[in-house]
Amino acid sequence: MIQIAILGFGTVGTGVAKVIAENPRQIERKLGEPLEVKSILVRHFKDGPFRQLMTDDFSKIEEDGDIRVVVEAIGGVEAAYDYTRRALSAGKHVVTANKQLVAEKGCELLALARKKNVSYLFEASVGGGIPILHPLTQCMAANRIDEVYGILNGTTNYILTRMVRAGASFADALAEAQKKGYAEADPTADVDGIDAGRKICILADLAFGRQVDPERVPMAGIRDLSLRDVKIARRAGYRVKLLGRAARTAGGGHTAYVAPHLISEDSPLAGVEDVFNAVVVKGNATGEVMFYGRGAGELPTASACVADVMEVLQQSPRREEIGWSPESGGFTDPLELESRHYFRIRGSLSDAVGAFGQAEVLDEDGGTAFLTDAMTGREALERSGALEVLACLRVLA
Amino acid sequence: MIQIAILGFGTVGTGVAKVIAENPRQIERKLGEPLEVKSILVRHFKDGPFRQLMTDDFSKIEEDGDIRVVVEAIGGVEAAYDYTRRALSAGKHVVTANKQLVAEKGCELLALARKKNVSYLFEASVGGGIPILHPLTQCMAANRIDEVYGILNGTTNYILTRMVRAGASFADALAEAQKKGYAEADPTADVDGIDAGRKICILADLAFGRQVDPERVPMAGIRDLSLRDVKIARRAGYRVKLLGRAARTAGGGHTAYVAPHLISEDSPLAGVEDVFNAVVVKGNATGEVMFYGRGAGELPTASACVADVMEVLQQSPRREEIGWSPESGGFTDPLELESRHYFRIRGSLSDAVGAFGQAEVLDEDGGTAFLTDAMTGREALERSGALEVLACLRVLA
Repeated sequence: MIQIAILGFGTVGTGVAKVIAENPRQIERKLGEPLEVKSILVRHFKDGPFRQLMTDDFSKIEEDGDIRVVVEAIGGVEAAYDYTRRALSAGKHVVTANKQLVAEKGCELLALARKKNVSYLFEASVGGGIPILHPLTQCMAANRIDEVYGILNGTTNYILTRMVRAGASFADALAEAQKKGYAEADPTADVDGIDAGRKICILADLAFGRQVDPERVPMAGIRDLSLRDVKIARRAGYRVKLLGRAARTAGGGHTAYVAPHLISEDSPLAGVEDVFNAVVVKGNATGEVMFYGRGAGELPTASACVADVMEVLQQSPRREEIGWSPESGGFTDPLELESRHYFRIRGSLSDAVGAFGQAEVLDEDGGTAFLTDAMTGREALERSGALEVLACLRVLA
Repeated sequence: MIQIAILGFGTVGTGVAKVIAENPRQIERKLGEPLEVKSILVRHFKDGPFRQLMTDDFSKIEEDGDIRVVVEAIGGVEAAYDYTRRALSAGKHVVTANKQLVAEKGCELLALARKKNVSYLFEASVGGGIPILHPLTQCMAANRIDEVYGILNGTTNYILTRMVRAGASFADALAEAQKKGYAEADPTADVDGIDAGRKICILADLAFGRQVDPERVPMAGIRDLSLRDVKIARRAGYRVKLLGRAARTAGGGHTAYVAPHLISEDSPLAGVEDVFNAVVVKGNATGEVMFYGRGAGELPTASACVADVMEVLQQSPRREEIGWSPESGGFTDPLELESRHYFRIRGSLSDAVGAFGQAEVLDEDGGTAFLTDAMTGREALERSGALEVLACLRVLA
C-alpha cells in the first residue's frame, strides 16, 4: 500500500481521487501494490465520499512519514509554492498540473527536489492528458530541439473554430464558450494568451534547457481578432490559430511568444478544432512530430498527474535529469524571427507594394489584405510604419 | 565516458552512430558524461569513418565489460535473437528497433532482462522516431487502455495517398514508391500488412499487458484494394487507410488485426498523408490522444534508439515494469468487433437490402456500393454470404 496526499480539491484534485478509485487494477499492475489517497488538504470541509480524508492543516501531511507523494492541485503561486517547497523539503515527491507555478518557479523547485533526492514532475501542466513533456525530454533526448509550437489553449481554439464554422464574431463565440463551460466567467487568462504563454515557457525551458522568464515572453491573444481576417485567410487556404511558439534564433539564442498565426490548411495543426490541443516538436534527427488530444478536463489532466505519481514511485531514488538550467541567457526578442506576414491596411495595393516592395494580395474590398515575403518581425514593423495597419499576423512557415 | 556497441551497420545502425556524432552536446547534458560507440558488429568490413570500430566477432563485445549498452540493429529474428539473449545474459542493456523480434520474442526477452537486472527497450520498433510506446506505457499508465489504432506503415500510406490524389492504380503507385525508395524491391512485408501487423502486436501487448501472438492476428494489406472503392469512399466523405487496430472486446478479452478501413474525413487520421504515421490511443481517463510524425527513416528511428540508450543509462538499476505478461489468454477473433461495413457487390440495391435489411447506398454504377448498419464482422460475413462481393472494408466508428 502506497499512500499519497492531494492538496486542493477542485477540478484536478477531485479528478486525481476519481482516477485512482476507477483504475485500481491498472495502477496496481504497474506499481506492484495498491495506491491510496490518505489525506486531502482543503480550506473548507465538504461532504461526500472523501469527507473523512480531508484536513485543513498542511502540517499533518508534511509530518506524515507514510505519505510519499503529494499532488499539488491548488493552482496559482502563493500557497501552492509554499506547500510544494515544504513537501519537497520533507522528502516527499511532488506532482502537479499547476502551469503558473511551474512556469515561474519550476527551475527552483526542481533544484530543491534534486537536493532532497526526490522528484518534481508536471506532465499535466502542458496539454492536460496529452503526453508531451515526457516525450520531449526523454523520447527525443537525442535530438537538438529546434522548435516547439502548438495550439496550447482549448478555450481560444474553440472560439476560433466557431468563428470559422459559424461565422460568429469573437464576442458571440466567447459567450457560447462560456455557456458551454469551456471559458471562465473572467476569460482573461485564456483569451489574452496568458495560459498559452505559461505553457510555451515550460516547453521552451525544457526544449532549450534554459530558464525562460514569463515576463519576457510577449503574449498576444485573440480578443482583437476580426472575423474579417479569419474569412480572408480561409479563402486563401489558411486557418487562423492562436499558437505558442518557441524557437532557436540565428545567433545561437532562443525565443518564445504567443500570437495568432495564419497556418496553411495543409499543416497537421490546421485540422485541430474545438477544444483540442496539439503540439509540434521539431528535432534535428526526428523531424516534426505532433502530439494531439484534449488539452484540459478533469480526468485527462488528473490521469497525467497519477501517471507522474506512478513514475516517481517506480524510479528510485529520483527521475533522470531533465536539463532545465537556471541560466536565462540567450533569450532573444521574437521580433528577430523571420516569417511571412499577413497585413490588412486601410490603403491600396500600391501602398502595400510601396512599403514592402512586393505583396501577394488576398483581398481588396475596402482596404488591402496581403502577404509579405519572409522577413523579421522587426523589419515588418518598420516597413509598415507609414501604413494604416488594421491587422497584422505572422504566417507559420 | 559511457561506451556502447552497435550490432549491424545498415540503415538503423549507421543512423545511431550519426546521431551520437551529431548531437554530443545534447546527449552529454542529460547523461552527465559523453557517449561513445566502442564497437560495431558487421559481417563484412567496410571502409569509412567507423572502420576502426568494426569487428565481426560478437564475443569481443559480449566479453567487453566497458560496454554497458548494446544497440541491436541487425533485424529479423535468428542472429538478432541469439545476440540479444547473450548480451542481456552478460548484464548489458539492449535497445532495438527490431519490430519482428520484439513482436515474436519481446515478452521472453523482457523476462530475461528482468532476471539479469538490465533493460530491454524498443521505442523505435513502432512509429520510428515518434514517441509512442513510452507515452503509452508510462504517461498513460493511470488509464485502462481501451483501444489503439493507427497508420503504422508509411509505404502503404504513401501508396494510398497517390491513389487518392493522382488517381493512380495500386500497381502504378507501388512502382512510384519503389522508385522513390519508399518501398523495397520485395514489398511484401509492407504491402501485405505484415509490418503493420508486427507493430500492432507490440502495441496490443503493451496496451493490454498480454502476449498477442502475431500468428493469431489477421493481417490484410492493400494489394487487392481497388481504385474504384477509394474513389467511391472519397465522394462519400471517407478516406481509405490501412489501419492496425487493437481493442478490448465485449467479453473481457481483446483482439488485434490489420486491414484497410474507411475513416471519416473528420477523423484526425484522415489528414495523415504520404509516408507519415499516426497512432491513436484511447484511454478511459485521457480519451483519445494521437501521436504523429515520420514513422521510419535513418535518423528518426536512430534517435529513438539513442534516447532509449540514454534512458537505460539514467535509470538504475532498470526501467520500471511495463506490464507485458506472458499470458496469452483472452485473445478474441476480430470478427467479433462491431462496426459499419462498406460493401461493393455485383448486384442491385434490393440485393443489398435483402441481405442486410438496410443499406446506405454510395454508388450504383455497374453494381452497388453501400454501407451497412453496425454489426460484428462475423454477422457481416454471414449476411453477405449469398451476395457476389467485390469489396468489403470496415468503417472505423
